[in-house]
Amino acid sequence: MKKIAIGIDIGGTNTLFGLVDNSGECLTKKSLLTSNYDTPEKLIKAIFDGVQEMKDDRNDIEIIGIGVGAPNGNFYNGTIEYAPNLKWKGVINLIQLFRKYFDLPVYVTNDANAAAIGEMTYGVAKGINDFVVVTLGTGLGSGIVSNGKLIYGHDGFAGELGHTIVEENGRDCACGRKGCLETYVSATGIVRTAHILLAKSSKPSIISDEKITAKSIAEAAQKGDSLALEIFDYTAKKLGLSLANLVAITSPKIIVLFGGLSNSGESISEPTQKYMEEYLLQIFKNKIKITQSFFKEGTAAVIGAGSLVWNELKNDETNK
Amino acid sequence: MKKIAIGIDIGGTNTLFGLVDNSGECLTKKSLLTSNYDTPEKLIKAIFDGVQEMKDDRNDIEIIGIGVGAPNGNFYNGTIEYAPNLKWKGVINLIQLFRKYFDLPVYVTNDANAAAIGEMTYGVAKGINDFVVVTLGTGLGSGIVSNGKLIYGHDGFAGELGHTIVEENGRDCACGRKGCLETYVSATGIVRTAHILLAKSSKPSIISDEKITAKSIAEAAQKGDSLALEIFDYTAKKLGLSLANLVAITSPKIIVLFGGLSNSGESISEPTQKYMEEYLLQIFKNKIKITQSFFKEGTAAVIGAGSLVWNELKNDETNK
Repeated sequence: MKKIAIGIDIGGTNTLFGLVDNSGECLTKKSLLTSNYDTPEKLIKAIFDGVQEMKDDRNDIEIIGIGVGAPNGNFYNGTIEYAPNLKWKGVINLIQLFRKYFDLPVYVTNDANAAAIGEMTYGVAKGINDFVVVTLGTGLGSGIVSNGKLIYGHDGFAGELGHTIVEENGRDCACGRKGCLETYVSATGIVRTAHILLAKSSKPSIISDEKITAKSIAEAAQKGDSLALEIFDYTAKKLGLSLANLVAITSPKIIVLFGGLSNSGESISEPTQKYMEEYLLQIFKNKIKITQSFFKEGTAAVIGAGSLVWNELKNDETNK
Repeated sequence: MKKIAIGIDIGGTNTLFGLVDNSGECLTKKSLLTSNYDTPEKLIKAIFDGVQEMKDDRNDIEIIGIGVGAPNGNFYNGTIEYAPNLKWKGVINLIQLFRKYFDLPVYVTNDANAAAIGEMTYGVAKGINDFVVVTLGTGLGSGIVSNGKLIYGHDGFAGELGHTIVEENGRDCACGRKGCLETYVSATGIVRTAHILLAKSSKPSIISDEKITAKSIAEAAQKGDSLALEIFDYTAKKLGLSLANLVAITSPKIIVLFGGLSNSGESISEPTQKYMEEYLLQIFKNKIKITQSFFKEGTAAVIGAGSLVWNELKNDETNK
């Protein structure tokens, strides 16, 4: 029997889940529309049914645990707590709900932390004890690893780089404050920057020809559109300064960019590396590499969540 | 025979060293003027002579290791690297130099990290796995502990909160960049703020009666001098925002203020706590306590350095 972890990525739009083996291979996966389920239990029931089908398709596997990446997922409590982009409100005890259907250990964390554990276990951060994963999607998440361990902090909520304030009285953020990094550096942030520069600039630009999205800006930048390049440059400068400040705090060996915005060719990582170098304290210059995720989008989040299980089993072994 | 560590704090002005036992007691200490020694080896020779005298005074001790806190001290390399406030330039291999005189294990780190290990081993952070120490002196240093381990980063230089950039194109910093936190929040930073507010304000203030120092500003604030209080408020706001951002990254349970500026009564920690709360992300509000160091100034740095030895011995035991 082959030992297998279930990896689940609960997102605001889609929930992906699949079977992940100990080498980080995603054997099979399925997708559900998160918003189709008006309670988290209904979603978990649907995942249970999906996993049964996956098991029926193969009789050579033994499932050993469940890893869940979810917005505001808390590792210590096994909960989702006040996630602004899910319709289920308050504190959701995921471990309790999963245990109704599965007699397996359940590990919960947020999507960026799951991504970091994925990179550490199978990806570009294998063998690296100090690194950071920055997820660029609708928002900006981060998973920070120091001394070979993920930083969960005293309450399980560490790693909120996207909610560091980079401009006092800056852009309104969904968290209720102003000037958070993710209001500038994210798929939504870059669109806000586009609106500001379109208002300010008299340059003609192809981005105004259709609905402005992070994707349309990235495509315009790749075609050499000058305003789109300016938008990327502004975004990269903000991210570069924040990463230089993060380096001063945790001194990672590599910074991994993961998800949405980061797959827009070289448009964001190259200028971000340039600005980060400009802002870095002397002792850190030319040491820290910004790199792309090892994983292809789509399976990455499922593998990251599955790797939570393998990583916890490894920690248990080490502590024996 | 009582087991004893030598704790050494090399500062820009004074070098303190003493005998530290396993309960964090400093049995005896001496002070040297760092600038009297034109090479680091001459200072180490003088420390060796001092330790011999300490040993001659008591015949019940066995010295088991040396812990050194020094500016730009690097734990991995056992070096001082390009310390701007020491007259010895370049990279100084402290372990090599100490080994000429002492046949003992030598551990080196910077003063803020040594302070953090001191607080973790004997002080207010005993039993706390996630906390931060901020040292407020001529500059601003920090020692960050996550998962019960000091964050040294991939190169041993992590924890430079004082060199995070908080104002683009802000005040000139000794590091060659602009807008670092320590140009605002430190004994020198607060004097710079005083000059700016004295230039801007028409308020009469007792701080202009004599040479302006962090101490004279603190004393004026305690007498209720309105300009001095404004200076402290400005400083606390800068520190409060930076700490709120640091909380978003590592989520410490407590933040310990240590050294110079922080001993100026309640003037800095109370308004800093207030501003930090204002800036904190919702999930972190009313959870994180800013507290004063457990140690009295003077012996604190020596105990912190000595605790490096005890902490490393403990780690060796755990890893066996």
